[in-house]
Order: sequence, then C-alpha cells, then structure tokens
Amino acid sequence: MTDTATILDASTPPAPAPRVADRALRARAARVVPAGGMYGHQAVRFAGLPANYPQFFAGGEGAHVQDVDGNRYLDLMGSWGPVVLGHRHPVVEAAARAQAELGDCLDGPGERMVELAELLTATVADADWAMFAKNGNDATTMACTVARAATGRRTVLKAVHAYHGASPAFTPLLTGTTPADRAHLVQFTYNDLAAAEAAAAEHDGDVAAVIVTPHLHDGPGDQQLVDPGFARGLRALCDRIGAVLVLDEVRAGFRLDLRGSWADLGVSVDLSAFSKAMANGYAISALTGRDALREAAGSIFVTGSFWTSAVAMAASLATIRTLAETDGTGVMAARGTQLVQGLRARAASAGLQVSVSGPVQMPLLRFADDADLALARTFAAGALDRGVYLHPSHNWFVSAALTEAHVDTVLDAAEGAFADVRDALEHA
Amino acid sequence: MTDTATILDASTPPAPAPRVADRALRARAARVVPAGGMYGHQAVRFAGLPANYPQFFAGGEGAHVQDVDGNRYLDLMGSWGPVVLGHRHPVVEAAARAQAELGDCLDGPGERMVELAELLTATVADADWAMFAKNGNDATTMACTVARAATGRRTVLKAVHAYHGASPAFTPLLTGTTPADRAHLVQFTYNDLAAAEAAAAEHDGDVAAVIVTPHLHDGPGDQQLVDPGFARGLRALCDRIGAVLVLDEVRAGFRLDLRGSWADLGVSVDLSAFSKAMANGYAISALTGRDALREAAGSIFVTGSFWTSAVAMAASLATIRTLAETDGTGVMAARGTQLVQGLRARAASAGLQVSVSGPVQMPLLRFADDADLALARTFAAGALDRGVYLHPSHNWFVSAALTEAHVDTVLDAAEGAFADVRDALEHA
Repeated sequence: MTDTATILDASTPPAPAPRVADRALRARAARVVPAGGMYGHQAVRFAGLPANYPQFFAGGEGAHVQDVDGNRYLDLMGSWGPVVLGHRHPVVEAAARAQAELGDCLDGPGERMVELAELLTATVADADWAMFAKNGNDATTMACTVARAATGRRTVLKAVHAYHGASPAFTPLLTGTTPADRAHLVQFTYNDLAAAEAAAAEHDGDVAAVIVTPHLHDGPGDQQLVDPGFARGLRALCDRIGAVLVLDEVRAGFRLDLRGSWADLGVSVDLSAFSKAMANGYAISALTGRDALREAAGSIFVTGSFWTSAVAMAASLATIRTLAETDGTGVMAARGTQLVQGLRARAASAGLQVSVSGPVQMPLLRFADDADLALARTFAAGALDRGVYLHPSHNWFVSAALTEAHVDTVLDAAEGAFADVRDALEHA
Repeated sequence: MTDTATILDASTPPAPAPRVADRALRARAARVVPAGGMYGHQAVRFAGLPANYPQFFAGGEGAHVQDVDGNRYLDLMGSWGPVVLGHRHPVVEAAARAQAELGDCLDGPGERMVELAELLTATVADADWAMFAKNGNDATTMACTVARAATGRRTVLKAVHAYHGASPAFTPLLTGTTPADRAHLVQFTYNDLAAAEAAAAEHDGDVAAVIVTPHLHDGPGDQQLVDPGFARGLRALCDRIGAVLVLDEVRAGFRLDLRGSWADLGVSVDLSAFSKAMANGYAISALTGRDALREAAGSIFVTGSFWTSAVAMAASLATIRTLAETDGTGVMAARGTQLVQGLRARAASAGLQVSVSGPVQMPLLRFADDADLALARTFAAGALDRGVYLHPSHNWFVSAALTEAHVDTVLDAAEGAFADVRDALEHA
C-alpha cells in the first residue's frame, strides 16, 4: 500500500469534486459531437486520458484552470501551449478589451496589424516582414507555399515524426487523406545531417524548403534537443542548394527565446511560423521571413475572414511586450529548471527510472519500460487527484504565471504520484 | 459635368477627412508586411481598390464602420460577411465578454461547445453533429477529409470558379502550389447537371464528394442562383454513386436561411461548412453533418490550438439565437430587396445598364460593357465619397443592422455615384 501520509500531506488539496457536470456534458456531447463527444487530437480527448480526467473546463485564472465541476488545478499544459503568461493575464485582457470596444473584424486591417508586424520584425532576429493568420497550420502551410513560389520547386523535406499541423499534407493520421497530399513531402531523421543531405540529393534541383521544429517534440521516445551542428548543417545545405529553411516555431516560439528558438545557436532561418504562445490564448498565427522572400510572400493568394481581426493582434502586442518587460522567458526557464530538477530528484527518491527530455520549459516525462503508458497514466492520474493538471504522454508547457511555490506544490503532487507508480509496480 | 445638386443633397455627409493616418500606416506597413503593406486577397488590398479607399479601419458600430482618419461609412461589406447583426452587437458582445471573464482557450472545451453543437443540430436541417475550427477553409478541408474517410475514394468534384478557401487545394491563384495539391480535384460547370454527371462518370468509382456553394458567388460574370433541378440532380447523383454532397455555406450560411441555404429547395446535404456569419465577427467555423458520416468524422485527425476556445462559441450562440429571435434573415431579405430594387430603379433613371445578381442579401452590381471594371470603380469611389463602403467587384453583404432609412441613404449615395458613372461615360 501507498503511504497515506505521503499523499495526504499538507500541500494536498481536498479530494476532487465528483465529475457530475463533466459526465452530464459528456453525455450531451456524445449526441452532437463526433467521436463520442470530442473529435480530433487523441491526446485532448477523454478517451485518451486517465479515467479521472475531466473533459470540460469552465475557466482559468493565472496559474490555475478549473473544470466544470469546480475542481481547480495548477495548470502545466497552458491550454496546450498558448497560455504563456497565465490565464486571463490582466495586461493582455485589458488590451484585448480596449480593442474590442472599438472593433475587431472590420472591412480591412487596423493599426494593430502594422504595430504587430513592426514588433515582430523588431523582436524576431530573422523577421523582416510578417503576415498573419489564425492557425499554426495556416502559417506552416503558407511557409511551404512561399518557398515553392520563391524557388519554383516542389519538394519539402521534413523530419520523421515532426508535427507541422493537422492539414492533409502534415497530419500524422492518414485517414481521409490521399498520397497526392504528400506527393512532394520527403522525410529525414531529425539531428541526422547526413540523412537530410541524402534526402536533398535524391531530389536534387527540386527542394523548395526544409521545415524543422527547433527541437524534435514529437515521436515515440524522448524529445530531442537540436544538435547545433545539425542546425548549422541544415543552414549550409539550404544555402548550397538554394532551398528555404523554415523553422516551425508554432509550439516553441515566444516560450524559449523571443528572438527565435535558434537565435542562441547563431543559426538564421528564412521563414518562421509562429502561433500558440504569441497572444496568450487569442487565436492568431504569423509567418515571418527575410527580405529575400518578401516578394514571394506577396505573390501568393492567402486570406481568411478573420486574419486581420484586431483583438487578437492587440492581445499579441500585449503578450510579447509583457514577456519582454518581465523577462518572461527567463522566468519560464527558471521555473522549468526547478521543475525538471525536482522531478528527477523525486523520481530517484522513489526508486523510479524516468527521463525528462526537451527544453525545461516544455518537458516530457517518460517512465522506463512503459511502452503502453500504464505508468505514465498512473502518474498523471495521481497528479490530477493532487491538484495538478498535466498530460501523461505529451510535453507540458511551463507558463510564466508559475511561482516557485507553485512548482514546489507541483513537485509535492509529483512525489505522491510517483508513490502511486511505485505502488502499482510493486503490486503488478 | 455632374449635377452638383444631385451629389451634395441633404443625405450627403461632409467630404471625407484627408487620408493622413491611412497614408502614414500604408508607409509603415510597406516596410514590414509583404505585397507593399497588405498581403493576400487582391480585393481587400488598396492596390485593388479605387484610389480614395482607405486600407485601414479603426472601428465599427452597428451599421457603420470607421476608418483610421475618422471617416464613418454605412457598411455594405459586413467585414466581408462575418458581421451579420451589425458591428459590436450588444447581445453578442455581452455574451463574449461574460465568457472572456471566465476563460477562453483552456485545456479542453467547455460547456459552450456542447451548447453550440446542440444549437446547430437543432437549427440546421441536415446537422446531426457538429465540429468546430477557425477558418472557413478548415471546415471545407475537413469536409473533403471526412468524405474521403467515409468512402475510401479520392476525387472531389467542384464547380468552375467556385471558391472554397485559400488552401493549396482550392486557392484560385496557383502560385506556390503544385499540381499534386489538386490531383483529385475535378471541375464541372455550375448549374449544368449533365456536366457534373459527366465528371462523375469519368471518375467512376472514385468520387468521394461533390462540393458546391448554395449559389455561384464567384466568377467573371454575374452571380448565379442555383437551379433547383441542378441541386436535386446533384443529390440524386450523390445517392446513386455513393458520394458525399457537401454544401459550402461559408459565405452564405446564417445569412439567407438559418436551416441551411438549400432548406427551402427541400434538398438535403450530407455535410455543411459554416463560418463567416455564425459568430458576428468572432473567429470560428463549423462542419456539420448527417448521422451516416458521424463515424467518419470521428475517425480523422484534425485539431487546432484555438478550435475549442469558448469566447467565439459564446458569440456564436448569441449570434444565432439573436438571428432567430429577431428574424434576422427576414430583415436582411427585406433590406436586400429594398436595396436591389432601388439600385435597379436608380440605375435605370440614370440611363445605365446594370445587373444586380445573386441573393438580394448578397448582391453583386455589375455595369454593362465594363470588362476592366472602370465603371464599377467609378461607382464605388462615388459611393465611398458619399459615405457608403461597398466593393467594386465583390458581392456585398447586407446586415440586419441596416434600417430602411439606412438603405435609403445608400440608394441616395448610389444615385450620386450613378451620376458619376454617367458623367464618366459622357466624357470618355
């Protein structure tokens, strides 16, 4: 048996309220929403989550989210990335509300679009221009289109397992797509420069773009930080063959480094696709690029009914300025370090073998010998019961709203959850 | 010369303020936004508009929009469709604000998603389920993916000139796309059932879907209302060959008939894609479908960071309920009729040959012998100078915020603008 004292220590919140409202909503949703009530990304659906997880959320404030039954959790998912400053950050909310009182979706863009393009080009190292859309996928798709327009070529190289959006060209599940959707998509192994060069050589003269994430956040195993030599090698490869280097910053952008996630490496990129964290939860994405691609970017036909809406742009201005003024990325790095070091220490104390991979601001926790994720799910379920919302198999997102005390609370919950795992292993 | 008295009548607002702020923003935008300051859809860019048109807007209220120089216009574009109840409709704004005070983008959907799916399935005749996204294009793309998943086939039939979104598969401008992007896209002539049947026969056994707009709103000529026999014939064709009939309601949905734009015809469809008008300017789109496609809809991988955001869903609930409670579609039909009849009468009085095509709520005005749109641009410029914002070559959108008096004002402005056209013709 688990040591009850360990679980029900002082930092443990009261037991969660019964999921009456959640269960009622699931039943209603099952009638009117496909896939039994929640479509899409398996990881977001209750079907893919531990049994004690809620499906439906009622609100968020700062570092916490609240489910529809009134249970409040320290949020380690940040709405799957967007919420970088914490839920309902007052500066962002005030900027959005002020713009909403003037107008949002109008007959054309407003001053906010120009200001945001100016801020991005001043902030992101490789941005000479910016254009805006709604989904991260809009930005990655535009990147490929711009690259093809600029080069007159077709092939796009991407890393195996790298996720660049849920369009037919990139979705990891082929159901409902056709081979033609990825006729010109060629895969190489992340961090294997020779593999990327070989893929390029096989499509000699036809490589429009190489698209990569700043680190490999997807795949069956640990996250992989980028090998600096690989990043520099991709830059050299693209220069040599006249291809466009696209950095897909949708997940990492404005969380690790406001200048761009590869700025520290000194590797410049031609196009960058941003979305999640750039407006603290407001729907927006951006493609930024270098001058050499400005004409190509202006030559393609892209548009969307809500792409020039001003409220999300006002929110993005406030988010990026607040991140800069408060050293938000520094705060997230510090909290991430505290979290990752604490997780490793407490797992070791519990006698558990874990890996915590990726940037500390976006850590992925995995257990040894856990191919079916049974241990990860036990851990996540234990964390949830102790008031922490995290995900069993997707990287987490550390927000700047987390205090050191919050992280301590997370670590205490993790300690209890590790004990649950230990217990499960001992009674297996 | 134009009769000055005609132009400067009592309904004419003061001459527009000089476009000082607009010019300054254009100069700033030209440095940081591709295509000289505004990318994308040619029709939205100042490059494609008459010289007196503003590019940048500051706000909107009810039936009016205001540019960055403080000029206020009666709005006949409704932000290119989304603003169906008028800008900043108080009921919609209150619902959105109330939700924003709880939370928007959370770790999963909220009750609003279930309510909205329930409202759509109760409102739209052919909707047994709903799923949500951000762009109209997300919904049309999902429709094709669902159809392909359901049928195991690849070919999608669409009408020549029909616009179904700006993705590489559908964009009207091929720059930066590849032939593979539309490898399985086959075109037929709208309202020509024999052509659709021939296209289907050519791809016998491989037709996954036929996608059509409720009327043909794009193309080089007039808009075309659907021939009821064509609509019924497509339904019969799809039933015969086991293909999915997709109605692309992105532009017309929730503007003509809340039940669906073909409900009046008694033609049921399998999937419907909605976006623009469903949340009065808030960014959302939806795919709805019949029970037979529920399993296929649940089998595909689609997701987006902001797809379950609650504020746009709260806005959509308020928009659709307000449209229902106030007979918004009836109001728009009445105002549209007043507008179209008035335009025809005043053009005739000015001795001008015009066509006003399409549904009266989404009219397209064209001048005879005007291939280069010179007359249309003179007309639009004249309307703008008289306080009415409309478009020279794209269909307009009548909103429910327009009163009879507003339409009279529009018609008086149109009378002056027709006189400008008359004058231009006489001095050509």
